[in-house]
Amino acid sequence: MPPLTTPKSGDALFASVERVNAELFTLTYGAIVRQLLTDLEEVEEVNKQLDQMGYNIGTRLVDEFLAKSNVSTCVDFKETADTIAKLGFKMFLGVTATVTNWDAEGTTCSFVLEDNPLVDFVELPDTCQGLQYCNVLSGVIRGALEMVSMKTEVTWVRDMLRGDDAYEMRVKLTKQVPEEYPYKDDD
Amino acid sequence: MPPLTTPKSGDALFASVERVNAELFTLTYGAIVRQLLTDLEEVEEVNKQLDQMGYNIGTRLVDEFLAKSNVSTCVDFKETADTIAKLGFKMFLGVTATVTNWDAEGTTCSFVLEDNPLVDFVELPDTCQGLQYCNVLSGVIRGALEMVSMKTEVTWVRDMLRGDDAYEMRVKLTKQVPEEYPYKDDD
Repeated sequence: MPPLTTPKSGDALFASVERVNAELFTLTYGAIVRQLLTDLEEVEEVNKQLDQMGYNIGTRLVDEFLAKSNVSTCVDFKETADTIAKLGFKMFLGVTATVTNWDAEGTTCSFVLEDNPLVDFVELPDTCQGLQYCNVLSGVIRGALEMVSMKTEVTWVRDMLRGDDAYEMRVKLTKQVPEEYPYKDDD
Repeated sequence: MPPLTTPKSGDALFASVERVNAELFTLTYGAIVRQLLTDLEEVEEVNKQLDQMGYNIGTRLVDEFLAKSNVSTCVDFKETADTIAKLGFKMFLGVTATVTNWDAEGTTCSFVLEDNPLVDFVELPDTCQGLQYCNVLSGVIRGALEMVSMKTEVTWVRDMLRGDDAYEMRVKLTKQVPEEYPYKDDD
């Protein structure tokens, strides 16, 4: 079925949602990471928790995204990735991502972020070099995509907190499950 | 010294700062609370952690507030309270608070919030009835005021999550310390 309405632009979409101060968000997220580091001690465990936290958030945000963006079904993974990069990032973080580095099969691509509100004022101490500070974002992508029937693996390949020139997450589509898959909250 | 510039309006201030989607913030904050409940088990401990987290955030946010709002020194606690309610809440959460219920000495007042982005979609399960879900906010107020030399005690007296008709936090000025008090980050 063709879309009945035109998707909104990223700017219009961002303007249409309730917003809070980005610094408040950044500091709040920083407080979570600090808390997890204190409680869990192992950086690898913190990475997992942040990813899981993001996953849970992503499964919720996808509803607001579909409700407000006027986006209907995307035809394939490519269109889905473009929609996330141009509209999804904009709607939630106020920035856009670039989709690049597609593999030949069209099942793996990168989201590149040059501006990332999550990391303002953040510096990793030497003891936290293994920390994937932005794992909440990759978790959000994974969670949101799973809600629209795409199972993915998402990993960070570039990270400005580790001295890279941008943030790049690699998104690999591993399985496209039927829309009617019986998800249950309690599973 | 009189102010050299006019303070911005709350709306102008909110428009001038970087923002992110409120739902993302709400869900992220919800993820912290859930994490703390899992890790700490005791609701009372969670309340303390949220307050401390807010305190740390408040000590940072006050800088952005003073830098962007064009507010200079407030003459007394009353003016400070009004400034927080009209400009501070607006700048960070996009809502304003009402200042009310002043005591005779002018050292205790209430901030009343009817709209609170922190609690959208939140319902407290029966096991969490003692949870002060919004303790991060009272902590922020306490931390921010301490940075401008006002020691306070902040407690919640009404909470819509517990069935009240608004959010009301009681702010009591306990001590006004000299501006030149030697704060150190490491203390």
